[in-house]
Amino acid sequence: MQYTAPLRDMKFVMHELLESERHYSSIPDFQDTDRELMDSLFEAGASFAQKVISPLNQSGDAEGCTFNDGQVTTPSGFKDAYQQYCELGFPALSAEEDFGGQNLPISVSTVINEMMGTANWSFSMYPGLSHGAIQTIEHHGTDAQKATYLEKMVTGEWSGTMCLTEAQAGSDLGIITTKAVPNDDGTYQITGQKIFISAGEHDLTDNIIHIVLARLPDAPKGTKGISLFIVPKVLVNEDGTLGARNQLSCGAIEHKMGIKASATCVMNFDGATGYLIGAKNRGLACMFTFMNVARLGTALQGVAAAEYAFQGALAYAKDRQAMRALSGAKAPKQPADPIIVHPAVRGMLLTAKAFAEGGRALVYYLAQFADTVAKGDDKARREADTMLSLLTPIAKAFLTETGYEAANHGVQVFGGHGYISEWGMEQNVRDTRIACLYEGTTEIQALDLLGRKVIGSQGKMLTPFTRMIAEFCEAHADNDEMGQFIRPLARLNAEWSNVTSRIAMQTTETPDAIGGAAVDYLYFSGYVTLAYLWAKMALIAQTALAEGTSETGFYDAKIKTAQFYFAKLLPRARTHVQRIDSGVEPYMSMRVEQFAF
Amino acid sequence: MQYTAPLRDMKFVMHELLESERHYSSIPDFQDTDRELMDSLFEAGASFAQKVISPLNQSGDAEGCTFNDGQVTTPSGFKDAYQQYCELGFPALSAEEDFGGQNLPISVSTVINEMMGTANWSFSMYPGLSHGAIQTIEHHGTDAQKATYLEKMVTGEWSGTMCLTEAQAGSDLGIITTKAVPNDDGTYQITGQKIFISAGEHDLTDNIIHIVLARLPDAPKGTKGISLFIVPKVLVNEDGTLGARNQLSCGAIEHKMGIKASATCVMNFDGATGYLIGAKNRGLACMFTFMNVARLGTALQGVAAAEYAFQGALAYAKDRQAMRALSGAKAPKQPADPIIVHPAVRGMLLTAKAFAEGGRALVYYLAQFADTVAKGDDKARREADTMLSLLTPIAKAFLTETGYEAANHGVQVFGGHGYISEWGMEQNVRDTRIACLYEGTTEIQALDLLGRKVIGSQGKMLTPFTRMIAEFCEAHADNDEMGQFIRPLARLNAEWSNVTSRIAMQTTETPDAIGGAAVDYLYFSGYVTLAYLWAKMALIAQTALAEGTSETGFYDAKIKTAQFYFAKLLPRARTHVQRIDSGVEPYMSMRVEQFAF
Repeated sequence: MQYTAPLRDMKFVMHELLESERHYSSIPDFQDTDRELMDSLFEAGASFAQKVISPLNQSGDAEGCTFNDGQVTTPSGFKDAYQQYCELGFPALSAEEDFGGQNLPISVSTVINEMMGTANWSFSMYPGLSHGAIQTIEHHGTDAQKATYLEKMVTGEWSGTMCLTEAQAGSDLGIITTKAVPNDDGTYQITGQKIFISAGEHDLTDNIIHIVLARLPDAPKGTKGISLFIVPKVLVNEDGTLGARNQLSCGAIEHKMGIKASATCVMNFDGATGYLIGAKNRGLACMFTFMNVARLGTALQGVAAAEYAFQGALAYAKDRQAMRALSGAKAPKQPADPIIVHPAVRGMLLTAKAFAEGGRALVYYLAQFADTVAKGDDKARREADTMLSLLTPIAKAFLTETGYEAANHGVQVFGGHGYISEWGMEQNVRDTRIACLYEGTTEIQALDLLGRKVIGSQGKMLTPFTRMIAEFCEAHADNDEMGQFIRPLARLNAEWSNVTSRIAMQTTETPDAIGGAAVDYLYFSGYVTLAYLWAKMALIAQTALAEGTSETGFYDAKIKTAQFYFAKLLPRARTHVQRIDSGVEPYMSMRVEQFAF
Repeated sequence: MQYTAPLRDMKFVMHELLESERHYSSIPDFQDTDRELMDSLFEAGASFAQKVISPLNQSGDAEGCTFNDGQVTTPSGFKDAYQQYCELGFPALSAEEDFGGQNLPISVSTVINEMMGTANWSFSMYPGLSHGAIQTIEHHGTDAQKATYLEKMVTGEWSGTMCLTEAQAGSDLGIITTKAVPNDDGTYQITGQKIFISAGEHDLTDNIIHIVLARLPDAPKGTKGISLFIVPKVLVNEDGTLGARNQLSCGAIEHKMGIKASATCVMNFDGATGYLIGAKNRGLACMFTFMNVARLGTALQGVAAAEYAFQGALAYAKDRQAMRALSGAKAPKQPADPIIVHPAVRGMLLTAKAFAEGGRALVYYLAQFADTVAKGDDKARREADTMLSLLTPIAKAFLTETGYEAANHGVQVFGGHGYISEWGMEQNVRDTRIACLYEGTTEIQALDLLGRKVIGSQGKMLTPFTRMIAEFCEAHADNDEMGQFIRPLARLNAEWSNVTSRIAMQTTETPDAIGGAAVDYLYFSGYVTLAYLWAKMALIAQTALAEGTSETGFYDAKIKTAQFYFAKLLPRARTHVQRIDSGVEPYMSMRVEQFAF
């Protein structure tokens, strides 16, 4: 499938819904980011995504990465494309100017990342994985470490990884066993095996800078005994040139369901030289500083999946003919009507559209908070951090799950043809399935949202957002045309507070109640959050139409998509409340030995 | 993953829920099918499935089929396994004794088919696809055609296919273009291309008997101009020996998401010799005679997916350790608790269990109706046919969709490891995805259920089933322990009739209303149907416990699974009602050109 960046919708969200120019003008670092600059960047990103990497998406899946004696070869065309990507400056958009970056807001690079990721998610993971390593060094590195590594990483000359997971430790990083033993010269010997390391080894760059979680010999057990180390593939001399190969190697790449063009590596550290970054035993805390942004990047994969499915299925539904509309032939001269006449096909297209556009709005919205967290003043930063922390697990889990649903609709619209590689729809399902797993599974996000954040703050982290929704509902209570959105939104927003209180009550009786309610709570929160954004988008569209816009089709479609969302998707929120209210007992009553006979 | 047949549960459904022995005693042909015979067959089927074909499931996926110059090679081990399968008599269980079959009830072979399919769905498709061809010839063939083909197909020496789909015609068979031109000798020249032909070409048998849908030169347009032809790969001489190769060939095999060990073929008929079967232009009507049984076979794939996911995920959830139970450490000597302590993990396991066991009950229940349709007396046959026709689209679509959901839970329980080929969980997702597409997509099943059957009969096909549920609810209204199941079931059963009436009302205003409501109506029907079966199973378990069974763990688990189903899955039914009640307008209001800008 050939991807086309939905520029009109991206601009709608950035300029009309989120008023980005006004947002940037409130942050001194971003004053120069005006609409003209944004639009020209978006055009450049769209052009590259469409022309260079979209054509490599299906071929990359078919060819995959190959592993041979420790070396990983990426699919044909990836190396050239990566070089062009770097030459065009895309890796450096949001990095600090001091290290060769362009210091653009995260919310601007998010738009570019969506385009790259939708065109070719596997490709986008190579530069994407560097961001975590760059941010770790930016925030926690010494000046010497920054000087040694950052510039080459920012320009894309070197790439980076995050080496967290071990075979026995994924969601629970407290039980990792990789060791870091101090050398006399202040460096450390890193020994252990890491798995699922995306871009752990590849042929796109001359060096790969690994950020490795490991334990010092005297470290306390659990999550409070984890430290972070910089472990380069090739050691860097004092003058910045490349030195000896470090004692680490890629042992294998995984055979997996999708993202086959992205190398998922087993990394063996055999007494590799590592450099402590940040304070001893504070490694996990350091990671939290950018986890929200990393999770937002994964949320984008859900948006990408929905957009990709929508584009593919829409083209097919207009073209493919089968049966007649129940209301009478729509293309009487053809042997059958195009399948877009059938309500079930429209339902699948509109579901993908509502999740893609609603998800886009949510991710860009959160990226604005990330801008403020990064560069805003103290007060703004605190407020933005609260909102970002609350909404990030929702965005990550809800958008990847609904993106996966949309990807499956993409296959379904194609019927049996959707199951065949040719159209890219089944690849989209396979590629997207990982998004609900990595960067913290849906279940982990749900515990983070309900346990750590909402209940953990005794509701204080939730209140600013539900208050904002309530104020929006009050402000437009008299708008007749908005009533169809405002009434259900206000009701569900009130329910959000109520269901939270009921869970808190359950929890006083049984601590497992949080675990029983968390996933449903997350879905509920996701549906309400998207309802709020769809209501806001409908309001903007209504206003534009009232003011006599010439783009009546576009704005009218926004209102109709909002109506679809409220009529057909939002009702699911109620089921989640019912499931929460039936408590944790139905999960816990069966004894382990009773599950199977 | 090594599959283990859930024999205890299969026997529970066959002997306790469905009282198969009593059922068979009411049908003269099946009087000999007693419990001892059934159990010995089940043991034999389990042994073969577990020892011979389960070990070939993951290797078959990795190796796939290969195509070379018109020849298809199945994965290593398949040919041997197929020969053993035939020697053990498995292809012939339900076929007529006259042609070498064992004349066993469809409901018995259904149990065996579940085992084979769960162990290795791709393998089971080779003999599975023959069934449609065998039944076509049994029901519509001349005596000469039966004599020529049936015995070798029943024993598995030859296989069969159904050649329906063409590139431009899948759901809508009315627009197929393959031609059949009469020869002077009463045979026909078949010319055209068929796609998605499972087992169209392979190396397991010496001959392949294709049943091909084609049009005669003077045929009316649409579905009323389709005839059926027997088109053997190798022509058969009058003495039954193999003659010349027919003018047909496999042009390619598809690269697809899953069932990679099953050859999905493009079949080119280049003036191939074909033999008319059944009346001219009545081909589609002939197909309907066994479509219910074929769709039931696909419904089994959903059950298989849920069972496979459940078995894999349960073993992993007991073994894998991550974090502590929120209610306190359960394995304090281990670094972390097994993940089965976490409610979200239990929720995924129980969802798979509830759909696997509930789906098994539904498919076996329908297979009993199929027994009666095949061999019962006239009155019983008519009643059974009504029930089978109503419930088959529900079973096909609802069980494949929920089986796919369960397959995804199987991946999710494994976290990132679920995405890796090693464990078989991602293969289960890929293999299962086709089940919602072939033999009529979910959307086609939904139109069949709501449009053709329920509304088409003005509700008359629905009433016998809802009345049966109502009678069950009344009969056990005074059973206190059953109240938890009877009350919600009675409420939803009444709603079933009500929502049907409301849709009928919508339809008088807009014919598209059926298309708008159909998929939700199908899901609603599925949840209520499974609720009925779960309530019945809970009643049997309650009775067994009251009577002092020694298997307290097993029966108690049935009740707890029923409670889980009612608390956590059945609430979804309400959402579908809400979606139906919001009408078809939200699907139809957007103009085609408004979908994207």
